[in-house]
Amino acid sequence: MSAVAAATPDTRQRLIDAAIALFIRHSFAGTSLQMIADELGFTKAAIYHHFRTREQLLTAILEPIIDKLSAVVDDAERLRGVQARAERMLNGYARLAVENPMLVSVLAADPSVHTVLRANRDWTHMISRQMALLADVHPGPGGYLRAQFVFAGIAGSADPKREADDEWLHAQLVDAGRRALGLRPPRRTS
Amino acid sequence: MSAVAAATPDTRQRLIDAAIALFIRHSFAGTSLQMIADELGFTKAAIYHHFRTREQLLTAILEPIIDKLSAVVDDAERLRGVQARAERMLNGYARLAVENPMLVSVLAADPSVHTVLRANRDWTHMISRQMALLADVHPGPGGYLRAQFVFAGIAGSADPKREADDEWLHAQLVDAGRRALGLRPPRRTS
Repeated sequence: MSAVAAATPDTRQRLIDAAIALFIRHSFAGTSLQMIADELGFTKAAIYHHFRTREQLLTAILEPIIDKLSAVVDDAERLRGVQARAERMLNGYARLAVENPMLVSVLAADPSVHTVLRANRDWTHMISRQMALLADVHPGPGGYLRAQFVFAGIAGSADPKREADDEWLHAQLVDAGRRALGLRPPRRTS
Repeated sequence: MSAVAAATPDTRQRLIDAAIALFIRHSFAGTSLQMIADELGFTKAAIYHHFRTREQLLTAILEPIIDKLSAVVDDAERLRGVQARAERMLNGYARLAVENPMLVSVLAADPSVHTVLRANRDWTHMISRQMALLADVHPGPGGYLRAQFVFAGIAGSADPKREADDEWLHAQLVDAGRRALGLRPPRRTS
């Protein structure tokens, strides 16, 4: 069965989905390729066909969400005005959290993932730009703390097992973020 | 050396301190008793003298902070008025985060710790009382989300490696929490 499974085009995606679920339960450091193989009834060879190491698998998992985050950062940086940029960053991050709650919680909360993230220069650079977009609302040391508070708050409250509607959740997260930052709501929603 | 080390009264505390540092780097699930032994130059037998399993060690680590959290919850529940109770809970949680940033981040952010926490009925009961104290500020589904946002925000922004003064950080965290909750600052600080 495993040889057939490895040849199926969506095997890679099934591996990724199973890995994310295990990372959330056991953290990245606590999940072995063997555990992922067991979860899907694959042999380890079938996994090696797609990913040589756990780090390769983690990179494959994080890349799409980091690409989306980069796009939000680029988009926000194109705007003029600290308030408008923060508003765009906040909206975009809340959207990512609502649409990918499992991924955002792995990215934001798993200490062993942070260790891998910090080893990638492009990623740390992007994350510091992301922080600055909110931190600039309050120049000085309080601004950076406020930005950390808001990103951690959003990542930690987008529950993957929620019953709430996406639009409702997004509006709540943005509203909580605006209040914590002291950001005026825009006249029109963009 | 290890036999002497195991007999020294503060060996237990050294084990706990080394374990917390490793949990933060590798998560609970990614840290073995062997890794803790290696970190301190102990034999595994010296560790077994104090803790039979990793779960026993985690319980020993979490118990003091959960006891402190319970004391804050009890204290806040004794007050009258939703606003006063939320204010006391917020202040107490921010104080714990400032004084024990490593522990609070393990408690709040490590997915493998959550699995252990949820298995303990007394702890889940205490955590739901803690949530209610902030959630009651906004009756309805938005209140619970707002409470999650604030606790995650505080836990995620009390950086163990900060240079900031404790009182400044506490004031910042409480202020961000009040704003996110829409809580009026009290006339006098309690």
